[in-house]
Parts: sequence; structure tokens; C-alpha cells
Amino acid sequence: MKIAIDAMGGDHAPQSTVEGALAAAKEWGDIEIILVGDEQVLKPMVQDAPANLRIHHASEVIDAEDEPVKAVRRKKDASMVVAGRLVREGEAAAMISAGNTGALMTTGLLVVGRMEGIERPALAPMIPTLDGRGVLALDLGANMDAKPEHLAQYALMGSVYRDKVHGIAKPRVGLLNVGTEAMKGNELTKAAFPLLEAMPINFVGNVEARDVLTGACDVLVCDGFAGNILLKSLEGTAGAMFSILKKEFSKSLKNKLAAAVLMPSLRGLKTMMDYKEHGGAPLLGLSGLVVKGHGSSDGGAIKNAVRQARTALQSSLTESIAREISGK
Amino acid sequence: MKIAIDAMGGDHAPQSTVEGALAAAKEWGDIEIILVGDEQVLKPMVQDAPANLRIHHASEVIDAEDEPVKAVRRKKDASMVVAGRLVREGEAAAMISAGNTGALMTTGLLVVGRMEGIERPALAPMIPTLDGRGVLALDLGANMDAKPEHLAQYALMGSVYRDKVHGIAKPRVGLLNVGTEAMKGNELTKAAFPLLEAMPINFVGNVEARDVLTGACDVLVCDGFAGNILLKSLEGTAGAMFSILKKEFSKSLKNKLAAAVLMPSLRGLKTMMDYKEHGGAPLLGLSGLVVKGHGSSDGGAIKNAVRQARTALQSSLTESIAREISGK
Repeated sequence: MKIAIDAMGGDHAPQSTVEGALAAAKEWGDIEIILVGDEQVLKPMVQDAPANLRIHHASEVIDAEDEPVKAVRRKKDASMVVAGRLVREGEAAAMISAGNTGALMTTGLLVVGRMEGIERPALAPMIPTLDGRGVLALDLGANMDAKPEHLAQYALMGSVYRDKVHGIAKPRVGLLNVGTEAMKGNELTKAAFPLLEAMPINFVGNVEARDVLTGACDVLVCDGFAGNILLKSLEGTAGAMFSILKKEFSKSLKNKLAAAVLMPSLRGLKTMMDYKEHGGAPLLGLSGLVVKGHGSSDGGAIKNAVRQARTALQSSLTESIAREISGK
Repeated sequence: MKIAIDAMGGDHAPQSTVEGALAAAKEWGDIEIILVGDEQVLKPMVQDAPANLRIHHASEVIDAEDEPVKAVRRKKDASMVVAGRLVREGEAAAMISAGNTGALMTTGLLVVGRMEGIERPALAPMIPTLDGRGVLALDLGANMDAKPEHLAQYALMGSVYRDKVHGIAKPRVGLLNVGTEAMKGNELTKAAFPLLEAMPINFVGNVEARDVLTGACDVLVCDGFAGNILLKSLEGTAGAMFSILKKEFSKSLKNKLAAAVLMPSLRGLKTMMDYKEHGGAPLLGLSGLVVKGHGSSDGGAIKNAVRQARTALQSSLTESIAREISGK
């Protein structure tokens, strides 16, 4: 299993990507890591690398500020684009990047290419839930206006992912909506509902935004706009509450002392509510596996993304999705 | 100023509505309260009522479980419907109800009637913010699929409301979106953006869901679907965090003691995060004033809704909105 890592992508690259790559190569002898990036920079950093790690030179880098489509089209030798090309050409089975999200989605579409039968690839991060199972939410990517058929494809892809990669048999698939009754929603969700009912998945119906964190489903289907509102509202609310707690807890010496006792619990809560901590997000519906690491990924996060990619490859995720989509 | 109160609407009605009505009538001599509901039930409860409170009999009641449109059409003598009729016929300038939300929106549309030039009335609750100003969000009602022109009208109505009722000059109006740049969003928000720029309001551009609670704007414009996702995600996240804190804080005796010290702060946070606590929500764009109280309203909440209606009437809210909408 060859896994290409965009060595130059991410806030802490290439330090983080090299660290993660080294750790992953050492831990799993059955994979081969291809570090894609500037050889001059990378070579001195991997002196003690195991045999299953090698460098593939790429002279350019896509920055966080680059305009995605333009950057992918023009920087043909950018580390991200080259990693994508390795996947398209079968030289790697998967690629991982913590770089510019828009550019990675564009690389997926234009370089790796869509899977046959898929109209819109979807970005599928995990959102933490109270029961610890988490929920795979898709699409949280650049597809702001989805059609009902897109939501149905998201449902199928997410369902296969949870089954294959997380080992959840018959994952519960929910449709993000404003009420639990079948006739609730906007034009999109009302039209998607019967399509989801007809899919070979465990569709549990509509799920309200307030029930997502309590683990109402394993896969949450939504268009990119609604998904963004959901996730950013979660993020904003958690942030606002922490900021109030911080202020309140330092109001008096008595409060400060009490807060110090509870600090481990508060830190645990903060980690739990930070969905960025919860691994890489697969970009589903491409002809190869693409995993997006968060921009602030450190070495541990990169290694985790490799673990995720390895599990997905072992379980033939892409082939399984292709089979389900083609209905064979 | 005559204000009709649906005496039978709400989880704690008629106890709560009568209590609130009595308190309001006593406090404000310049208003006249019309309690609409079953005279047999209400009469014994208002024995010591001041002269500016009277009962208007209505024999039927719309329940929380009633199908809204059907109930409003069939129960012609329901307290909510009768209160709406008093507004339409000019016998009351405003009505307040803590009953079935869908039925109240239907009563607004079918009984009170739309304001000329308004296509979709909007429900506009306040969402609490860290800076204490709060944000008026609309539409949070039954209009799941809005057109760009609807969003523009929401913006104008919300802006007038914050100015007239809350005394905020040039309120900052934001468009709920997935990014702050003008070209971000789905088809709806991208089409609405230039319309909002052209309105006679203080449009501050797109506002992301994560910035709502930090007070990025005074009026937040969105379609009913996105608004519901935003609000329910806020509610769900706050609820999840409290439930984790509760568990963590009772883990050991040490934690319990520390948590006891911080309890007042935690309670304050809970109240702040509970948007239901933050007053009644006006239904804007009708030919008269309609204020929706939360279903769980107690006497204090009903009195607050009366205060809100009184301020709106004193500032000629409805006339001001009509003037802005007609462009005169």
C-alpha cells in the first residue's frame, strides 16, 4: 500500500508531515510512504528514515492564501498536485494533505478525478458526540448547493465508510433537517427523504441539529451550506461558553481555586468539543483515496491520517463505494 | 394602546397569561389589556383586576398538538384566532400568544393578514450574544425556502425593529453565510448579497455562524432552514456541554465541592445560553403587531412580552416598517 503525503501542506509543514511520515513508516511495515515535496528541504530531515519511506520531488508549493482552482491549474509541480497525480496514475493508492482545503478539493476533482457515477465528491469530517462514537458528516466541503440525488450519494458513501473504516455494521444514516417528521424541511430535504428511504442503507430519518451531538446517527447527510452552519455554530457556541467560563472562573480567588480543581475536566471538554482534533476527513467519491488533515495538524495528526488511510485501503473502501454506486 | 393576550396559549396557561396580564395592566396605565379566552375560566382569576384589563370571550382552544393550518381554519372561536381577529379589525393594536407556533404564524398570515408589499412575514427571536446586545435573527419561522428578495425584506424589517424597539441607531445587519467574502455562499446568499447592499440599511456583509454569539451584527438575516440549523446547533451544543460538565463535576467529592463554589456562574451561563429566556419574538411583516411568547412562558415572560409590544406600539413599529417597505 503506497500512501503519498503532501509534505509541504499545513501550518507546521514540513516539520509535522515529516515527523508523522517517519512515525507511520516505522509503525507499519506493510505501507510505503511517498513524501512529496522539495527534495532539498526534505532530504536532510529523513536521514534515519526506514526503507519504506522515500521522497518524490516537487518544486512548487500551494499556500493557504492561493486561489484554489487557479493554483491547482498553474502550479503543476506543486507538492499537493504531484501527490494527486501519483494517485491518478496508480503510483500511490492514497494521498494525504493538510494544505489549502479548497485546493485539495480541486486536486481531488481535477487531478485524481471523480469516481464513475459520482456527481459530487464530498468532504466528510467526524463530529464528536457525547457517546464517543462520533458522526461522519457530509458534505462539509465546497458543494454549497446540493441536489437531492447528491444527498443520496453522500448517504451511500458515508455508510460504506463507517462500515469499512470504523467497523460499524449498518451505520445509522440521518438527514440533517428542521424536524423529525418525514414531511419537514426545505425543498431539498423533502425531495431527498424518499430517495434516502429507497437506498440500501440504514436510514433513520431526519435528525435535528440539536440531536447531532447526542449521537442520533452515525452518518449525517447535508448540503455544504447547512453543514457549515451546523459545524461553525457548534464551534462558536463552544468557544463562547469557554470564554464566559474563563471570565467567571477568574472573578474571585475562591472561584480561581475551585476552577483549578476542575481544570482537567474542562480541558477534556475542550478537546472533546474541538472537532479539528478528531482525525482527517476523507474526500469521498474520487477514483482514489484522498484524506484531508486539518491545517494545524502536528506529527501525531499526520500519523493518524496515515492510520486512517491504511485502514481504508485494507478494507478496499474505494472499490466498495464504487460497487455500491454502480449498484453491482 | 389595546393589547390582546391569547389567555389559553402556552404550557402554563391560563395561570401564566392571567398573572402576566394582571402585572402588566397594573404597571402600565396607558395600555388596555384584552384577555381572550374562556370567560368561565378567566373571570374568577381576575377578580381584583384593574380597570384597564377586560375579558373577551372565546370558546375554543388551539392545542400544541393541533395541525396549525387546519386548526386555525376550523376553530374559528379559538382564543388565538379571536385575538388575531381583534387585531385585524382594529379592536386591538397588538396580540401576544405563547401557544402553538405554527398556528400563530398561520393566524398571522390568514387572520391578521400580511402588510402590503411583504411576501413573507418572518419570525424574529433574539439570540443572546457575549456582549449582551443580542442579535435579532430572522427568519426563524416556517419559511424554509426563501428567495433573495425575501431576505432583503427581512433585513429591512429587522433593521427597523432594532432601531424602534431597542433604540439601536443604524443597527448592523449581517447575512448568515459560510464565509465573510462577498462571493461566498450558496445560490440564495450570493443572490441576496447585492440586494442587501442596495437596501437603506447598515449592511455589514456576510457573518459566519461561529461569529454570531460574539456579536458580529445586530440583525442576522437567513432563511428559515439555515436559521433553524444555527439555533438548534447552538441549543444542542450548549446542552451537550452542560451535560458533560455535570458528569465531570460530580465525579469525585473534590470536584463536587469545587463545582458548588462555581454553581452561580454556571447557572448564569445556562440562563445566558438559553435563547428561550430572551423575550418574545415578533412576527414581522403583518398588518398588525403579533408577538410570540415561548411555550414555557411564565407570568414574568408574558409581562415582558407586553412590555415589548407596548414599546413597539409607542414607537409606531408597524407603520415605520410599512413606510420603509413602500419606499416612502
